[in-house]
Amino acid sequence: MKSLASEKALVILSGGQDSTTCLYWALEQFHEVETLTYDYGQRHRREIAAAALVAERAGVPNTVLHLSAFTELGGSSLTESLPIQEHGTKDGLPNTFVPGRNLIFLTYAAAYAYQRSIQHLVLGVCETDYSGYPDCRAETLKSTLAGINLGMEANFLLHTPLMLLSKKETVLLAKELGALSALAATHTCYNGTSHPCGTCPACLLRAKGFAEADIPDPLVDSE
Amino acid sequence: MKSLASEKALVILSGGQDSTTCLYWALEQFHEVETLTYDYGQRHRREIAAAALVAERAGVPNTVLHLSAFTELGGSSLTESLPIQEHGTKDGLPNTFVPGRNLIFLTYAAAYAYQRSIQHLVLGVCETDYSGYPDCRAETLKSTLAGINLGMEANFLLHTPLMLLSKKETVLLAKELGALSALAATHTCYNGTSHPCGTCPACLLRAKGFAEADIPDPLVDSE
Repeated sequence: MKSLASEKALVILSGGQDSTTCLYWALEQFHEVETLTYDYGQRHRREIAAAALVAERAGVPNTVLHLSAFTELGGSSLTESLPIQEHGTKDGLPNTFVPGRNLIFLTYAAAYAYQRSIQHLVLGVCETDYSGYPDCRAETLKSTLAGINLGMEANFLLHTPLMLLSKKETVLLAKELGALSALAATHTCYNGTSHPCGTCPACLLRAKGFAEADIPDPLVDSE
Repeated sequence: MKSLASEKALVILSGGQDSTTCLYWALEQFHEVETLTYDYGQRHRREIAAAALVAERAGVPNTVLHLSAFTELGGSSLTESLPIQEHGTKDGLPNTFVPGRNLIFLTYAAAYAYQRSIQHLVLGVCETDYSGYPDCRAETLKSTLAGINLGMEANFLLHTPLMLLSKKETVLLAKELGALSALAATHTCYNGTSHPCGTCPACLLRAKGFAEADIPDPLVDSE
């Protein structure tokens, strides 16, 4: 059995609102925190720069892993120049769905954590998210983690602090954690603009969360 | 739920003896067969060329996906210039173990099969293999597949026809399938020589299997 350090955590940091909030959650829970960012050929390169900036401001290391295979596989509006759809593919999933993305993210995070003997993995996924990606669900991640722990002879623990929160509750959690100002450095918009476009599903969801929490979005204010 | 074609199979083809035998097994079982090969920065590039040659001779398509992250993660003698060890790391696993490799291979295979609506995934792993990689075990793969099917809303079926076979039985299966001559195109040696070095764990295991089956290895004969 792999020996892992229980005081260390690895946060998968996309550069968005949710994973940034998770980073601040982890900073409260664990003695040592690192962040891991995936360059999977996402159309909006500023996500990766946002992750680096968020990590720098939080004073934690940020490592980028390159996953070119998603671009080679193709088929998602997040990695190709397809129009963003919220709903409506033939299989009932939005075309922002990248098959296997979170499964791959979690498995590589475990492989990285294995090398560094980090026991805790933190992922900013959310079941209540509008898109209903099936790889964000607790049941999916539980099975994947079971495979990882068996396959690496390890006992990683997975934390998904936002899993059952609404976007409003996530904003309130960020406030409680003192993470609001860090959210000014995050990137959310599916259309890739720094200032929220205000019309894509991701911007609408973010705006709704801040509005319901009755807190101004520091990203909007910063522009 | 994703609609998948039950007559189609995808074989993960490394270019070695086991996956080549699996390819011929799949050709007997399924109407349409494709192969997928991973370039994960393995030290011995001839594995990838061997896979292409095996697929060409079998008359099936071969696609290569590039997984650079394993090289970025490092730490295995299969991706770095470390001496090959069969046993003896501090965690009880040989230093040829690449954490998460088969989990990642299976998940990307499913993502590829998802795009092409292929239901069957075929993987040449073997529990009885000498190395005891924990990500080759049936229990590990079952959990990982459960995560994949939940995460992609699909019903992929995984076939591991060699799981419980000894290397001798695998050689006999290859003979039964008419795959022996194809094994001349495969690559096995951990030290990267085309002709078996005869001393690395992989060559020794292969030689033992052919000797016990009392069949000459076409790879040795072809040189």
